[in-house]
Amino acid sequence: MQNWKALAEKVELALRENAINGEPKELYEPIDYSLKMGGKRIRPTLVLMAGDLFGKQAEELLHLALAVEVFHNFTLLHDDIMDEAPLRRGKDTVHKKWGRDIAILSGDVMMVKAYEFLAQSDAEILPQLLSLFNQTAIEVCEGQQMDMNFEEQTEVSITAYIRMIELKTAVLLAAALKMGAIASGASASDADSIYDFGRNIGIAFQIQDDFLDAYADPEKFGKQVGGDILQNKKTYLLLTAIQEANENQTERLNDLLSNNSDSQSKIEQMIALYDELNVPQLTQNAMQDYFEKGIQSLEKINVSSEAKNELIDLVKMLMWRDV
Amino acid sequence: MQNWKALAEKVELALRENAINGEPKELYEPIDYSLKMGGKRIRPTLVLMAGDLFGKQAEELLHLALAVEVFHNFTLLHDDIMDEAPLRRGKDTVHKKWGRDIAILSGDVMMVKAYEFLAQSDAEILPQLLSLFNQTAIEVCEGQQMDMNFEEQTEVSITAYIRMIELKTAVLLAAALKMGAIASGASASDADSIYDFGRNIGIAFQIQDDFLDAYADPEKFGKQVGGDILQNKKTYLLLTAIQEANENQTERLNDLLSNNSDSQSKIEQMIALYDELNVPQLTQNAMQDYFEKGIQSLEKINVSSEAKNELIDLVKMLMWRDV
Repeated sequence: MQNWKALAEKVELALRENAINGEPKELYEPIDYSLKMGGKRIRPTLVLMAGDLFGKQAEELLHLALAVEVFHNFTLLHDDIMDEAPLRRGKDTVHKKWGRDIAILSGDVMMVKAYEFLAQSDAEILPQLLSLFNQTAIEVCEGQQMDMNFEEQTEVSITAYIRMIELKTAVLLAAALKMGAIASGASASDADSIYDFGRNIGIAFQIQDDFLDAYADPEKFGKQVGGDILQNKKTYLLLTAIQEANENQTERLNDLLSNNSDSQSKIEQMIALYDELNVPQLTQNAMQDYFEKGIQSLEKINVSSEAKNELIDLVKMLMWRDV
Repeated sequence: MQNWKALAEKVELALRENAINGEPKELYEPIDYSLKMGGKRIRPTLVLMAGDLFGKQAEELLHLALAVEVFHNFTLLHDDIMDEAPLRRGKDTVHKKWGRDIAILSGDVMMVKAYEFLAQSDAEILPQLLSLFNQTAIEVCEGQQMDMNFEEQTEVSITAYIRMIELKTAVLLAAALKMGAIASGASASDADSIYDFGRNIGIAFQIQDDFLDAYADPEKFGKQVGGDILQNKKTYLLLTAIQEANENQTERLNDLLSNNSDSQSKIEQMIALYDELNVPQLTQNAMQDYFEKGIQSLEKINVSSEAKNELIDLVKMLMWRDV
């Protein structure tokens, strides 16, 4: 079986060979820029990994891998406008470099280009793929809206938070795998199982992301540890702390949330409170639960366990990544 | 044959019966609002008119009509952000009412919803419809980018201007007709002819729009006559004036373009200069040329001329509308 890295390289090559360009250049330069920014190419590689699992050559699934990656980058582009993010992967964001209008419009074109790649599918599976892709695209937007809503809301339940990360992040990972499965002729039941695998792993992945933002090794973490704490971001950690805190701890928590003065001390005190409330363990438990649910879905799939191991290895590598 | 108005009413009813809603409501309320703003529903009605021409019941084409109308309203929603337009059809624009972020995101969802309606097509024609729809969506975005570029450019050729209005406006009218034709089982040649009819008529339509902005009867025109002149908008009229002017007239033209003081006098002087340069006649000639090219394309289509007359009547009514 081919390994993760080899498939990711095929994605990278396909992105270069299918570069999106045209006129007016003001519209297409930002698209090219945003697709060349890099990233781990996890989603398109998952399309190819699913193909590998069900015995389809990567070469026959590249258009679907590109559809998923171009769609994902469209969401990043529009999200960056909404978040007013100046940087992505250390580079100027499109709206920062070219302005809001070009960022909106080149994002729109990227979404259509994703559908163009999707449309290269065999006619007999196109309706099924299009339906899955549409549903996923809608859900990703709903997740982004929920995320924006949470910023304004004082109370957010852990259930609502899990639903948000499921929509905003997990369903696209799930859909990438399912698209690869459908295009490889997997059974409906296997396609559903790999979707559930991706959905649960995606949720686990996002919970781990929240965890690492506070508990990663600063030497190895790419950005400032505690960034979410400084922004009062409603992460799995904070929502768990709010749920677990007694009256006195709630008061300390609220004091910390309204404190915008000394950054380092705010991070340290919040982490001390998290530790006191057993938040790291509760978070790891939740993460582990979703991870195991995902593995159980994968086990249902009717292929050799050898073929599954590559996918499990990849997921473990991404989950317990060296940060 | 059914008339224009009856088909437009079917579109209106279908829009109500297929209202787009869901959670979070922050995302869906603006979509519902924007689709209920009204408008003449020209594009979706053209889908049904093409069906009528090639003998398909409106009821079987409503999903395509909705795809086109929802896509069109998505473009209006995003264009209004870029243009910072406060009003559309006398009502607050979505970005004015709900803010930039919700306008971007609910526009994105509308685009996906357009693809959902499209996906309701029969599997055997879906690839063809999807390919046409993708190409058209890309072209509309390219037209919008050209339009934004023109605002910054000092020199714009009439050829480039025609290409811009073709992309921004005409191709969607053309695609609406062609989608209706494809879904009605029209021959490839007839589908191409009705596309060319729509494309040429669309260009004529936009030239007429430019003309009316300066030359409409103020009593009957819905907005201020001369609005384009006040904004120094590069319309067919202005670009023709620039092309036709001698040295002295060019100087007067440039003086008027840099004059931002007295509105009414600027409009009057510009129209006097247009008249002196024969701009109204040249504009009407261009409009008439595209109109006739469109009619010639329609004549090639292999259906009874009776069936075509309804379409010609509609187009004439829209072109020489009572303003």
